[in-house]
Amino acid sequence: MSKSPAFLANALWQKQPKANAELFALTYGALVGELWRDLETPAAIQDELDRMGHSIGIRCIEEFLAKSDPPSRTGQQTFAETADLLKMAMRMFLGVSVETNMAANENTAGSGEVSSFSVIMQENPLALFVELPEDLQELEYSQMLCGMIRGMLEMLQFDVSCRMAQSQLKGDDVNEIQVDLNQVLKDGAGEDYQEE
Amino acid sequence: MSKSPAFLANALWQKQPKANAELFALTYGALVGELWRDLETPAAIQDELDRMGHSIGIRCIEEFLAKSDPPSRTGQQTFAETADLLKMAMRMFLGVSVETNMAANENTAGSGEVSSFSVIMQENPLALFVELPEDLQELEYSQMLCGMIRGMLEMLQFDVSCRMAQSQLKGDDVNEIQVDLNQVLKDGAGEDYQEE
Repeated sequence: MSKSPAFLANALWQKQPKANAELFALTYGALVGELWRDLETPAAIQDELDRMGHSIGIRCIEEFLAKSDPPSRTGQQTFAETADLLKMAMRMFLGVSVETNMAANENTAGSGEVSSFSVIMQENPLALFVELPEDLQELEYSQMLCGMIRGMLEMLQFDVSCRMAQSQLKGDDVNEIQVDLNQVLKDGAGEDYQEE
Repeated sequence: MSKSPAFLANALWQKQPKANAELFALTYGALVGELWRDLETPAAIQDELDRMGHSIGIRCIEEFLAKSDPPSRTGQQTFAETADLLKMAMRMFLGVSVETNMAANENTAGSGEVSSFSVIMQENPLALFVELPEDLQELEYSQMLCGMIRGMLEMLQFDVSCRMAQSQLKGDDVNEIQVDLNQVLKDGAGEDYQEE
């Protein structure tokens, strides 16, 4: 009998070498602070965090695929199936359980193909201790997560756009990242993108 | 019978919330990369990493003191005694065991007072996967550690200078941070410094 994805993801997380979550969050905070000193607008800070997250996401998903032998990895997944891989990889690298919601109303009419989902995180490891100052209320502080998801899915051959749809830092109940499929990449496209 | 500092430090580490050590190292790498794009010289990058580490060190030691009730914290420590607190705090926040060497030859003649020690780390959690590019061979990539130690000791009323004396990234066998005492601070000086 095969083990559940959640069980496997938890086992991967347990086996990972660990750092202190507070030091990690403080270091991420130092990174955002540095970008804030350097760049002019919240949008520019987010672009940079997104770019960094993209590189990190590619590294993470490669390691995830190497270590996990994921049960559904027999050939190409559908976009909907990648949501399960993503949940496992996020558990492995962020240490938190995430949920994904398929956006039923976004289904391509008739085909039943999912072209969007959202990732719900009850906890956000990047945002421990964080309170956004008055003049940065607009900033999506955790934009690196969007970049990470974008990088991960790119390596699974899906070009997506990601954005924070809800954020606890802005008073929402949960953190929610909206993931919209732009196009299915041909085999190997991910490798080229890696060089960016 | 009281438990050993190493036992207590390990218990503190076990109780800390955890992050993925690889994601932490990649995030620190993104921070150094950002500084590299922004600043001109290795010295300027190090200054900035040191400053960030100082703020983080103050946060860390405050939490350490709040959570640890360290056995030696009955009144003011000597400089030599702070080395033991530092070892425990670094175990709690970096997850690695460090050793300290008192520099016998640096003792103030006659008084027997230690005014220097070095911190030896066999592992460096900041430097997983890191290889310095040709044009950054001079950079002390892990300078944030020096800043952290400086911040921690400042809160224990010791103004110190810290520098990387050995680094595995530069081919040395271990990572060694040299800690030199500048002056003993008066009570409360640490609080003022915190506002910098």
